[in-house]
Amino acid sequence: MNANLSEYITKYKDMIQDEFNRYLRSLNTHPRLKESMLYSLEAGGKRLRPILMLASYEAYGQQIEKVLSTATALEMIHTYSLIHDDLPAMDDDDFRRGKPTNHKVFDEATAILAGDALLTYSFEIIANDSLLTAEEKVSLIQMLAVCSGPAGMVGGQILDMGAEGRPISLEEMERIHALKTGELVRSAILAGAMLGKATDEQLEHLTTFAYYLGLIFQVQDDILDVTGDEEKLGKPVGSDEDNQKSTYPKLLGIDGAMKQKEVYVEKAKDALEKAGAVNSVLMDLTDYFSNRDH
Amino acid sequence: MNANLSEYITKYKDMIQDEFNRYLRSLNTHPRLKESMLYSLEAGGKRLRPILMLASYEAYGQQIEKVLSTATALEMIHTYSLIHDDLPAMDDDDFRRGKPTNHKVFDEATAILAGDALLTYSFEIIANDSLLTAEEKVSLIQMLAVCSGPAGMVGGQILDMGAEGRPISLEEMERIHALKTGELVRSAILAGAMLGKATDEQLEHLTTFAYYLGLIFQVQDDILDVTGDEEKLGKPVGSDEDNQKSTYPKLLGIDGAMKQKEVYVEKAKDALEKAGAVNSVLMDLTDYFSNRDH
Repeated sequence: MNANLSEYITKYKDMIQDEFNRYLRSLNTHPRLKESMLYSLEAGGKRLRPILMLASYEAYGQQIEKVLSTATALEMIHTYSLIHDDLPAMDDDDFRRGKPTNHKVFDEATAILAGDALLTYSFEIIANDSLLTAEEKVSLIQMLAVCSGPAGMVGGQILDMGAEGRPISLEEMERIHALKTGELVRSAILAGAMLGKATDEQLEHLTTFAYYLGLIFQVQDDILDVTGDEEKLGKPVGSDEDNQKSTYPKLLGIDGAMKQKEVYVEKAKDALEKAGAVNSVLMDLTDYFSNRDH
Repeated sequence: MNANLSEYITKYKDMIQDEFNRYLRSLNTHPRLKESMLYSLEAGGKRLRPILMLASYEAYGQQIEKVLSTATALEMIHTYSLIHDDLPAMDDDDFRRGKPTNHKVFDEATAILAGDALLTYSFEIIANDSLLTAEEKVSLIQMLAVCSGPAGMVGGQILDMGAEGRPISLEEMERIHALKTGELVRSAILAGAMLGKATDEQLEHLTTFAYYLGLIFQVQDDILDVTGDEEKLGKPVGSDEDNQKSTYPKLLGIDGAMKQKEVYVEKAKDALEKAGAVNSVLMDLTDYFSNRDH
């Protein structure tokens, strides 16, 4: 990662963290629920989605404060999905990012409620944002609800569960990832660009960009699960093998997965050029996500 | 229940059921997830919240279609909360309304996701409603998110869990019910009146009305758990005793609980009069909820 991008990411990660603190401080709820929500929000994620939203906004717009609350809300939605995904009834994960998962620190009931609370609060945050017009709020809520709901992320989670323990095709796997991970990434990019007043044609190319970026992210995740450094990843490698999960390396081999990733990178950059965003940070982020080691 | 009220409730229950079918039919998601969502939506609830919203709207406004989607969304939020509440990690209930709970018919993971999906879809439904202005949508989403989120219903659920198995005061119990049940009832009544263009002063009195109506509902629930008919209730009586739950009859005795209910009924009707809604169906509904046998 180049020094500028590293600075950019650090700056925006800090901004998002400040927003979390601000929003959770002002929230009037039970201390244990608040603690549980904050625990997962502060568990040191990559903040991929809010950073993409901010970068996408900056490719077209100038007033970064305008997109900050929405970016925070989006990361809350992502965090809720991780909390629920880690539950014993779902993926049954004890660790995430090197830390015990929410239900291990608190308990299952609190983790379920903390997830519910984060999802609900994210819509409240957007509805309350004084820098957005009512029309902008409605468009954002509509987009986020579609991308994270039964036709999006939640739909991907149920597909993913149905695919465990049996062989699936590359096509089926892409479909799962496109829903489970891709939809929220897509809404991050489109929401940012929409607030930055990108044209409909630009939004269309960004949809293509987002699709391939989501896949790049997933291939790299799968590759790191085989070749990664446990310490950098903060989780044991080889867990996909144990889970009998279908992954790119399993389907295509490591070399095949690397080649597939390069195809996706090329298509993503092509779409970015057509969206007139080739000089934006989105370009650097594409390379970064493709080459990341954690 | 008088014949007119019975007809009113049946008519609006059917309308809400039609809306569920319409919205679920148009939803593009995994068949199993959709089936799980529909299972709980169709499990024969009293539709208390949407009927209150429709009645509250009709006390002030004329175009009932305007409030139908929001009423449907609200019942979806209520249904999601029941699905999550019944989970083994929460109340661990095998039956609700005489039918096996969602996680017993499907599985825990599907039940968690069906709840998440219903919550998210409810915001999408409001954001998509073509009969509402952007400002109305934002107000509704704001209100529903606050009432059902960490400062409302979800906050009440975590308080409720913390109160099981230990003696609590009437005051503490009222606080739990006000959040866990009352907040969503309040938002039903206020959302309906708001769309019907009630004045701020009327909304204030309706807030008081909603508070007492929520308590009436809860006292009657507790009374029925002791004196009710299992067949009419569709659930075993005495389950609060088994759960070591704090209830009105346990704190005040059955007679004391009945008297407390009468105090709440008087206060509710007084508020309704001040809100200029004394001739509305809300008045009949207050008596109905106070005297219901299931």
